[in-house]
Amino acid sequence: MALRTLGPKAAAALDEELMSTGAFTLSQLMELAGLAVAQALHTLSPPSTTPRVLIACGPGNNGGDGLVAARHLVHFGYAPTCYYPKQGKHEHYSALRAQLEQLRVSFVQDFPRALGEADCVVDAIFGFSFSGEVREPFPAVIRALAETKLPVLAVDAPSSWNIEDGPPGEGVGKDYQPTALISLTAPKPLVKFFRGRHFVGGRFVGKEIAEKYGFDLPPYKGADQIVEIGPTGEEL
Amino acid sequence: MALRTLGPKAAAALDEELMSTGAFTLSQLMELAGLAVAQALHTLSPPSTTPRVLIACGPGNNGGDGLVAARHLVHFGYAPTCYYPKQGKHEHYSALRAQLEQLRVSFVQDFPRALGEADCVVDAIFGFSFSGEVREPFPAVIRALAETKLPVLAVDAPSSWNIEDGPPGEGVGKDYQPTALISLTAPKPLVKFFRGRHFVGGRFVGKEIAEKYGFDLPPYKGADQIVEIGPTGEEL
Repeated sequence: MALRTLGPKAAAALDEELMSTGAFTLSQLMELAGLAVAQALHTLSPPSTTPRVLIACGPGNNGGDGLVAARHLVHFGYAPTCYYPKQGKHEHYSALRAQLEQLRVSFVQDFPRALGEADCVVDAIFGFSFSGEVREPFPAVIRALAETKLPVLAVDAPSSWNIEDGPPGEGVGKDYQPTALISLTAPKPLVKFFRGRHFVGGRFVGKEIAEKYGFDLPPYKGADQIVEIGPTGEEL
Repeated sequence: MALRTLGPKAAAALDEELMSTGAFTLSQLMELAGLAVAQALHTLSPPSTTPRVLIACGPGNNGGDGLVAARHLVHFGYAPTCYYPKQGKHEHYSALRAQLEQLRVSFVQDFPRALGEADCVVDAIFGFSFSGEVREPFPAVIRALAETKLPVLAVDAPSSWNIEDGPPGEGVGKDYQPTALISLTAPKPLVKFFRGRHFVGGRFVGKEIAEKYGFDLPPYKGADQIVEIGPTGEEL
């Protein structure tokens, strides 16, 4: 039996609850989510073989998770580069960017060129709140991610996929299957269309919250912040 | 050659820099520090044998690290209890407490009684900014920690120890040698008087910062957030 998933409305409501009655700050949750992303990439594609990681960040919280991951990846021995063409309004994004600039992480504008100089990629463009059309400048980025032979780790969702219905039937993202996915807090319904390696991270909710929102806590081991799971939700 | 240590003035200046020009929030740094504390306890004294952990929290940031650790320990399978008699003024401490209360973590007033019902202890009372006398109500708590046979993990410093000069020559804390210590960011000078297991955590500064403040980055492995080191600073 697969882990019960968390739909987009429930995921949004959970985020809202955690940051209101739950008393969490965005920077706390994003720190744990981004750390989990970085640790999953380390398992997928270690810095000894793929040091040059390109992190594609979208304008929202998915992009924020990517920025946090980039910082942890520096400490893990990678040489990250960020593509972050549309910075969101929340002041924490500016802080996350400043933290990276102090670590000498480059922010680049030319995605195809950066991809040509990378060894692996993190897709932190769109997360569980994505729906509708992929807006500029991201269509070309997602086409490049669909075509690259490099390992790609998608954060919470392969960008352009519908959170419930998976890959679009046509257009941008139709043939996009990243190498791996890290689901944050819980897998989203789209995982049934995903065929790569699957990690779960974001170990910050308890049993009561999982019950309330109707998902299963992932089978984390010990003090680990990520777990790789198989098609039926079991630890690998 | 032992890792170069970080004295109390340098540690305070580093914290100040990280949260001003470094653009870090307190909640970000505390989240990573507290996670490292929880992971060190898991290595020292796992929940399968010592599920009932008592966390003694002081009024400052060391206590905040303890509160964060308590939350992660819930997710790791422990049943934590917090002793937090003097809550500090920063609003984040209230938030951290609220996060624990939602996970049904108990806050207790009677330390000796709580110690009698615990399997292991985290000493998060005083950190690198401690100096002078141990104030009420903590002298009795530290005497009890010095006498207990339970595993005790101290956060950044065995509480009551002078950060430079180690255990006090007389009075409260004179005979206090906790089972283990987790140094945050870098060991403090007091480690030369410490004889237990020694972990380092708080993996959030880069080489430039370490150079500037004159300490060595610990020998972290892979994507780990803690490392256990020996007397000469080597990974064990």
